[in-house]
Amino acid sequence: MMKLVKEGSVTTPDGFAAGAADGRIKKPGQLDVAIIYSHRPCATAAVFTQNQVAAAPVIVDRETLQNNRRHIHAVVANSGNANACTGQIGLENTRRIQSLAANALGCQNSQILVLSTGVIGVQLPMDRVAGGIKEAANTLEPDNGSLAAQAIMTTDTYPKHTAIRVELAEGVVTIGGIAKGAGMIHPNMATLLGIFTTDAAIEPDLLDRLLRTAVGQSFNRISIDGDTSTNDTVLLLANGASGVHISDQQDIERFQLALNTITSALAKTIVRDGEGATKFVEIIVAGAPDVQSAHMVASTISTSPLVKTAFAGSDANWGRILAAAGRAGIAFDQNQVSLSIGVADPDQLNIVAQGTPTSYQEADAAAIFNEPEFKILLDLGAGTGTATMWTSDLSHEYITINADYRT
Amino acid sequence: MMKLVKEGSVTTPDGFAAGAADGRIKKPGQLDVAIIYSHRPCATAAVFTQNQVAAAPVIVDRETLQNNRRHIHAVVANSGNANACTGQIGLENTRRIQSLAANALGCQNSQILVLSTGVIGVQLPMDRVAGGIKEAANTLEPDNGSLAAQAIMTTDTYPKHTAIRVELAEGVVTIGGIAKGAGMIHPNMATLLGIFTTDAAIEPDLLDRLLRTAVGQSFNRISIDGDTSTNDTVLLLANGASGVHISDQQDIERFQLALNTITSALAKTIVRDGEGATKFVEIIVAGAPDVQSAHMVASTISTSPLVKTAFAGSDANWGRILAAAGRAGIAFDQNQVSLSIGVADPDQLNIVAQGTPTSYQEADAAAIFNEPEFKILLDLGAGTGTATMWTSDLSHEYITINADYRT
Repeated sequence: MMKLVKEGSVTTPDGFAAGAADGRIKKPGQLDVAIIYSHRPCATAAVFTQNQVAAAPVIVDRETLQNNRRHIHAVVANSGNANACTGQIGLENTRRIQSLAANALGCQNSQILVLSTGVIGVQLPMDRVAGGIKEAANTLEPDNGSLAAQAIMTTDTYPKHTAIRVELAEGVVTIGGIAKGAGMIHPNMATLLGIFTTDAAIEPDLLDRLLRTAVGQSFNRISIDGDTSTNDTVLLLANGASGVHISDQQDIERFQLALNTITSALAKTIVRDGEGATKFVEIIVAGAPDVQSAHMVASTISTSPLVKTAFAGSDANWGRILAAAGRAGIAFDQNQVSLSIGVADPDQLNIVAQGTPTSYQEADAAAIFNEPEFKILLDLGAGTGTATMWTSDLSHEYITINADYRT
Repeated sequence: MMKLVKEGSVTTPDGFAAGAADGRIKKPGQLDVAIIYSHRPCATAAVFTQNQVAAAPVIVDRETLQNNRRHIHAVVANSGNANACTGQIGLENTRRIQSLAANALGCQNSQILVLSTGVIGVQLPMDRVAGGIKEAANTLEPDNGSLAAQAIMTTDTYPKHTAIRVELAEGVVTIGGIAKGAGMIHPNMATLLGIFTTDAAIEPDLLDRLLRTAVGQSFNRISIDGDTSTNDTVLLLANGASGVHISDQQDIERFQLALNTITSALAKTIVRDGEGATKFVEIIVAGAPDVQSAHMVASTISTSPLVKTAFAGSDANWGRILAAAGRAGIAFDQNQVSLSIGVADPDQLNIVAQGTPTSYQEADAAAIFNEPEFKILLDLGAGTGTATMWTSDLSHEYITINADYRT
């Protein structure tokens, strides 16, 4: 029914090609310009940052998609420069990228989407960007998706890409994706770029619904540092090359499940490769008044520096988890709270019941916190709302990376 | 009119005495129990944590003050153990502290307030606490206020105390204070204990108003790590020993100014001595739709890990400041934003105008960020709301302190 494709990426679905180039926007010798191209025009859905300070490509892409959600041909992405806080010149540069790519690919400006990630407040070196686009367009191949994944990396330590095949009534369709993360990662979209492609044929409205649902259950559930960025974008392009149309309810559900699977997989990979991350922690909040409250509590725990430094120190200092929950702005009775931790099963070791520590052994708790991956289940005893988030620890390496990012 | 008292503390105002002891709640050889005592009963105002997970002493003090705001005789404080998440036993232990102190001091249980700070979720070692209270009561002296400041320290690196004299219509009154901070420091009260005393005679309602105003302009303006704690408490005790009654409007204003001055001074000291802090940064947000919006933006900037690691690296990476402002949930037009930085004058160097970088020299910006103290002025161009916050950087030392706090 559903099967992950080993080493899959945005070019695994039929009819997509990718190219990448070293445009010398980052340090020389690294790919920093990517093009993902479909000869067939794509229906396209997008989710953008909610940050008031939106980067030029976010502003331009919103405009582009407002006029054209059915005939997108390509995505051009660069790393090394976010083209954010760059004013009118930044907008003009983004439009120039559209035009350069349209010329190289033989399509219209309005059929090109642009993504940028990197340093804020510096104008793009347009001559080098132009060279990069030309070169990337010349390297377009149907198996170069993983090079595109490399070209969008900033502080990521490895490229992130995957694909999945799903069997529907009319036949098999494929969904592929690449993503980058590492810093400024937090729900509501972060410095996170995600590009997903599929060879299914899907109407733009349905595509939009599918993408929003998937993002809500994946990229909006992760947090590395609580900072949301100016450039966050997730795109989903459907070119219909498989000949399989999706409209029937069962097909929609199967496609949604497959899309959720690869967006979650890439989202978790982003946490695992978070800046300086040495731990991957699943925070499950249950017993909240409602789902939104559960999410607020999970989010507050996931971003607490004290909780995350305790993770870094493998210190089962659960008091910090309760203290973070208590400041999330959600009412609950501390005497009803229970907390369990575990490696595979979050109920493995109950350490707080009715708001006070149980007679658990510190060594057992320490053993769980010492694992690279573990789970925390906090039950507020105040209702039936549940939410899960994935977060990392806050380590020395995070400080090292971010105290001199530009130097 | 108004004069700081060198080496002043809670015992500088007339009629207050303090004592301190090593109750072996922390590592041996450190003071960890303090008593601040007034033979004359005190009108008392208090501000407590808003965390849902409130420590036992916070719960008990709220009850005590509900019944008795006019006849408080003493504050007993311990460090090394927060008595939080300790359930019914924790409440009983706090009441037992009231009773032990009342016996030692010859007053009623209901005339004793209790403060605790330290590790969460461990029951107090009551035999040692009892010994500490007895010993602290035996060392009560009118010039031992700075020892009390020492006894409430946790990860603070030095004791924090000050006092001020202010001339009013009827005569001179004195206000003194001690405080501790260092971790879990964020507005809305943090792991911050503050005890203020005055020999002025002030009605409880007025005292409450004076304290809330002062806290709003001092302790609620600081942030070290965004984590608010289970134990935060600021107390103000007025014993009337000076014979000067405060009720006339001009006296109220003068007293308020003096109280603001010392609460701000101690609040800033807490930021300077924040865990691992090497920078003291004043964040001024202007041009917000209203004061509350300005405060939300200032607070989001003050707690952004990316902003604070840039401070640690002396990196004038202003894009992170704008990105943090943009996710604060306040609407503004990024093209109207300006940003200036400076050492004494926040307008010294304008680095962003109309949302884009000016032609400032990177070396000039770096020179300012390289200072141990500097100011940042962000004007959103969206109104007249203004707010100021004081924050620190996020350094390796913070991680070191918090990754193994309990070990």
